[in-house]
Amino acid sequence: MPRRPVAVFAIAPWAFGGIFPSDLVTRLRQLVDIDPATTFTSFEGPAAAAALAEAEILLTGWGCPRVDARVLAAAPRLRAIVHAAGTVKAGVDPVVFERGLVVSSAAEANAVPVADYTIAMLVLGAKRVFSRARRYAAAVEGEPKDWLSGDGTGLNGRTVGLIGASRVGRHVLRRLRAFDVEILLYDPYVSAAEAARLGAEPVSMDDLCRRSDLVTVHAPALPETRHMLDARRLDLLPDGAIVINTARGSLIDTEALTRSCATGRISAILDVTDPEPLPPGHPLFAMPNVLITPHLAGAQGRELRLLGEFAVAEVSRLLGGVPLLGRVEPEQLAYIA
Amino acid sequence: MPRRPVAVFAIAPWAFGGIFPSDLVTRLRQLVDIDPATTFTSFEGPAAAAALAEAEILLTGWGCPRVDARVLAAAPRLRAIVHAAGTVKAGVDPVVFERGLVVSSAAEANAVPVADYTIAMLVLGAKRVFSRARRYAAAVEGEPKDWLSGDGTGLNGRTVGLIGASRVGRHVLRRLRAFDVEILLYDPYVSAAEAARLGAEPVSMDDLCRRSDLVTVHAPALPETRHMLDARRLDLLPDGAIVINTARGSLIDTEALTRSCATGRISAILDVTDPEPLPPGHPLFAMPNVLITPHLAGAQGRELRLLGEFAVAEVSRLLGGVPLLGRVEPEQLAYIA
Repeated sequence: MPRRPVAVFAIAPWAFGGIFPSDLVTRLRQLVDIDPATTFTSFEGPAAAAALAEAEILLTGWGCPRVDARVLAAAPRLRAIVHAAGTVKAGVDPVVFERGLVVSSAAEANAVPVADYTIAMLVLGAKRVFSRARRYAAAVEGEPKDWLSGDGTGLNGRTVGLIGASRVGRHVLRRLRAFDVEILLYDPYVSAAEAARLGAEPVSMDDLCRRSDLVTVHAPALPETRHMLDARRLDLLPDGAIVINTARGSLIDTEALTRSCATGRISAILDVTDPEPLPPGHPLFAMPNVLITPHLAGAQGRELRLLGEFAVAEVSRLLGGVPLLGRVEPEQLAYIA
Repeated sequence: MPRRPVAVFAIAPWAFGGIFPSDLVTRLRQLVDIDPATTFTSFEGPAAAAALAEAEILLTGWGCPRVDARVLAAAPRLRAIVHAAGTVKAGVDPVVFERGLVVSSAAEANAVPVADYTIAMLVLGAKRVFSRARRYAAAVEGEPKDWLSGDGTGLNGRTVGLIGASRVGRHVLRRLRAFDVEILLYDPYVSAAEAARLGAEPVSMDDLCRRSDLVTVHAPALPETRHMLDARRLDLLPDGAIVINTARGSLIDTEALTRSCATGRISAILDVTDPEPLPPGHPLFAMPNVLITPHLAGAQGRELRLLGEFAVAEVSRLLGGVPLLGRVEPEQLAYIA
């Protein structure tokens, strides 16, 4: 049997078992020499030093200590970081790219549950399922059954505006093909030709707001995207519009959104907020046209396995000399989430 | 231009505009001679008699009066009933089949929004989205953030049990292929080979209950399906199971379900109930593990158009001599919804 490359886990123990259940560890150990009983959350100390000295591949995830120049100096044989989670931004210092290491992220796999959540919320939100369920539950004998009417509801024939053709955004675009909807896309990094290929009409942010019955946010949190949905743009939305945010809370001006939703003119489904968590008793929690979920759209529970599967497949591609599906290029750090 | 067959609308005015918006009426009038200004909700009186005397096709929908022997006697040229809604059971007397009329129903089109609702609820239910959103909204400063954990949640790797490979059931089966789930099917009218073709393992009702993390009901309401999910079978469900019902309330013993959900052992997402509507203040409304929506999964609002599109396409197929996609055979009346 040829010598297998040495790999090391650096993931928080709470996340490890979900991301790498035993059958995935078995698959991984057919590819690399890795100790599943040890996963580092600090690179200090002699055990970490000994592991880094041999490591060719780092398998990282939530809770991984930042990989910087000092870590690299201790890991002369390191050639790849395979991250079994979404963004590598916080965990990977730019020096990693300067030294020519291959970096891969499982953001593609994490995008799947986020897109599933988004489509579910588009379908149910467009049908006013949550507000009608609330009115039904609060019904009083003898009063009009105002939850019955579905006048004008439903996703069919609606205009859906996507902010950002990110990984999640692209999965959402693909799933939206099954519906008879018009799709608008705002993404400054996407050409008109590519937007057309994705089935969307490229528009400006203001036009997207003016024309979309439903807006779903899939942009990264960057200084220039902060509050991209501000009071002025929220006012551009048509009456009855629904804003869905599974990206980052800072993309929306929370105070402006709170004011707009308080009037009942627009609705919101938010998996992320700013601040997060939203303080107990925040007015958004009590609004019948707002549903707030506690940052659960991404991989959780049994979905964590998707990240591990992606990472193991990346290791396999890496060793087989096949291009990585999750390869992160240094120039992407400026605009990815 | 060749003479176009004469057709007559028999649909309640409240449903007419949604099912047959003007562009669909225009398409229909290229196929048949029909008066869009007149839609009958009674076949009594001279106007109806005159229309029936000429009618070759009846375009029916919600609010259509029952087509029985007397109506047929007044409509000697009638050869087809094209129903732009779900079931034809209540509206079409068996004599219609005896006289050799072609009957078509748009149940296939109505199944689409029901299946979309079901998949959305499977995704969000498996993730405990609704109960976690409720706990998040009710948060108190300083108390544990028990809504954060997604331990064990998510559809990935779960077992989903379908009761009934009805039209809706088949759409759900098709959509479930996008997920990594094990699928069980109970349907006494489906062979093992067909179940396999549908991607499901055929099982008994009891086995389905024992093994399914999520159960979704797509069976017709018949005397023999009444309370098929009764106290005994609900007790077979594994801890944490979720029951989704978009079919008919009578398929589940509501009292038994109320008792089971009250313990917190199982959860439910119900679009239909027995009785329906559920009386104000019913204990199910207040349970954090139960979501009740007011019979809105089927075509509503903009989705009504799906029914009209299907009906117009059926008329086109009928006139072109192409087999109808929604053809109802008399022997189906015994087991369809």
